[in-house]
Amino acid sequence: MAMTPTRADDVCDADTRALLEDRFEVRWAGDQLDSAELARLADGAEIMITSWGTPSLPAELFGERGPRIVGHAAGTVKRLVPQELLGDRLTVFSAAARIAWSVGEYCLAACLALHRRLPAYDSRTRSGGWKPQGEFRGRELRGRTVSLIGGSSTARAFRTLLAPFDVRVQLYDPYLTAEQAEQLDVTLVDLPTAMAADVVSIHVPDLPATRGMITADLLARIPDGSVLINSARAGAVDPDALTAEIRSGRLQVALDVYAPEPPTLPPELTAAGNVLLTPHIAGDSVEGHQALVRFVLDDVIDFLDHGRRGASWVDPARWAVLA
Amino acid sequence: MAMTPTRADDVCDADTRALLEDRFEVRWAGDQLDSAELARLADGAEIMITSWGTPSLPAELFGERGPRIVGHAAGTVKRLVPQELLGDRLTVFSAAARIAWSVGEYCLAACLALHRRLPAYDSRTRSGGWKPQGEFRGRELRGRTVSLIGGSSTARAFRTLLAPFDVRVQLYDPYLTAEQAEQLDVTLVDLPTAMAADVVSIHVPDLPATRGMITADLLARIPDGSVLINSARAGAVDPDALTAEIRSGRLQVALDVYAPEPPTLPPELTAAGNVLLTPHIAGDSVEGHQALVRFVLDDVIDFLDHGRRGASWVDPARWAVLA
Repeated sequence: MAMTPTRADDVCDADTRALLEDRFEVRWAGDQLDSAELARLADGAEIMITSWGTPSLPAELFGERGPRIVGHAAGTVKRLVPQELLGDRLTVFSAAARIAWSVGEYCLAACLALHRRLPAYDSRTRSGGWKPQGEFRGRELRGRTVSLIGGSSTARAFRTLLAPFDVRVQLYDPYLTAEQAEQLDVTLVDLPTAMAADVVSIHVPDLPATRGMITADLLARIPDGSVLINSARAGAVDPDALTAEIRSGRLQVALDVYAPEPPTLPPELTAAGNVLLTPHIAGDSVEGHQALVRFVLDDVIDFLDHGRRGASWVDPARWAVLA
Repeated sequence: MAMTPTRADDVCDADTRALLEDRFEVRWAGDQLDSAELARLADGAEIMITSWGTPSLPAELFGERGPRIVGHAAGTVKRLVPQELLGDRLTVFSAAARIAWSVGEYCLAACLALHRRLPAYDSRTRSGGWKPQGEFRGRELRGRTVSLIGGSSTARAFRTLLAPFDVRVQLYDPYLTAEQAEQLDVTLVDLPTAMAADVVSIHVPDLPATRGMITADLLARIPDGSVLINSARAGAVDPDALTAEIRSGRLQVALDVYAPEPPTLPPELTAAGNVLLTPHIAGDSVEGHQALVRFVLDDVIDFLDHGRRGASWVDPARWAVLA
């Protein structure tokens, strides 16, 4: 267990600890995950379970006596394991899809709250006001158009939660096939078309191709009164154009990611009535984190016992487009 | 059309106007809905379409030459039509179930936002803070227990939206049968059991039996960290006990209804970080209102053409328990 005791408390519930101790001989890490500690954990181990705070694991760790399986009870494995080992030498599992559920819940929460103007109503009620006469008014989500920019696991979780709303869901993702789109019950569209929606939610990984992809021209295509949500990567959106759009007041904007983090936010953002600002917590929740070790462990055990590669398996062929 | 031009703009979309003019000879009301105007609208009319702002309709209006059908493009009809006429003389339709959809969206929005602590995160981020270290943390809704107090149409709409969350939904409603509960995919429980949930949402009408039904003892049964939502009637909850629970900080509370309205809120409510306050707008949304005349009109036409009583029909037998 290549994670500190504090992190283990966060990502491993009591049932999973019992399962681990029952099935395996478990070595728990101490508070310092230095190279000596990593070497101690890896030597003769079959599996290494990692999480946030685990340092990059050097190739030397995966020698003759090193683990053949890494289960990452967190999101991206890109800076965790050496890419060249993936395949026959090393099988990797990641809890990214489990974290995606918390992100999906965040996206629906932000989407409904802003579409319905709950922050504006709350502020008005607290200051002694009552129903506004024409200044603003809530919108219903039912029957409207939602665009997902990127078909990642977070986009899929959000789409699942939208099912009862009878919305039209558009997806821009150059890697998704028509068959996959049909399975997700989304309409594949080009990027300019995707921006013309009542809700636009960004779900792209941080890649050279995605940096700055949401330009000022694309932001301008979002209709007045629509909701824009970024729970993915701040770098995907032109920052100056985004600030200008927020300042204009014509959009409702939920931001969970910033560049850099923590950000130094300008007063026009911290005082804006049309934004919902959160500190990169879309993937963070008590119950979501508690489930992470179990999420990869179930697949690790299934792989050991039956050779199956479950939903949490990291496919080396998809490395280039991984978040 | 016994509603002012302003109200007609609010509750009747362009397609429905066209449908009305195509099928019927329509009399539109002026700005003053006084008894002379109501008499003019009713005389020789087959149907009367009403909404918010329509005064109580006296029995005299429904004489020999008066309408036999009232379609109420709003919620409760209790103070609108004389109860004794319902049945053979007068068939009434109400858009309460359509409004309920907007209320359901509000309930899910409030539930997710508070369960996830988005207002607290937003306030922290605006004031220059970043991820809190232990002071508070968001919860996931998936897999948790949600209790609905009352099985009204608003409760049903909320329940529909909860479907993808894999939550356990409990319902307290002394009028609901086991068969109806099964159709709604809820577990019928007694009131004290219902309070022991992660989310408690109130959906009772204002009746002698519901006034003050949520006592201090019942509020005390809600677990720490849970969410309480009241979008129904303020009178259902003991006001002093509710204020005390809010002040304690142990619950997250969404209030859309007050007694009286507009309320004079004490500073401990207007300054509280654990409440979401809205000005009785749970049922109000641009799209929800635009759909209201059409919602009753479709059923009115179906009744005229085929004698069917659709979902918006007001059953005289249920008058006593109507909101």
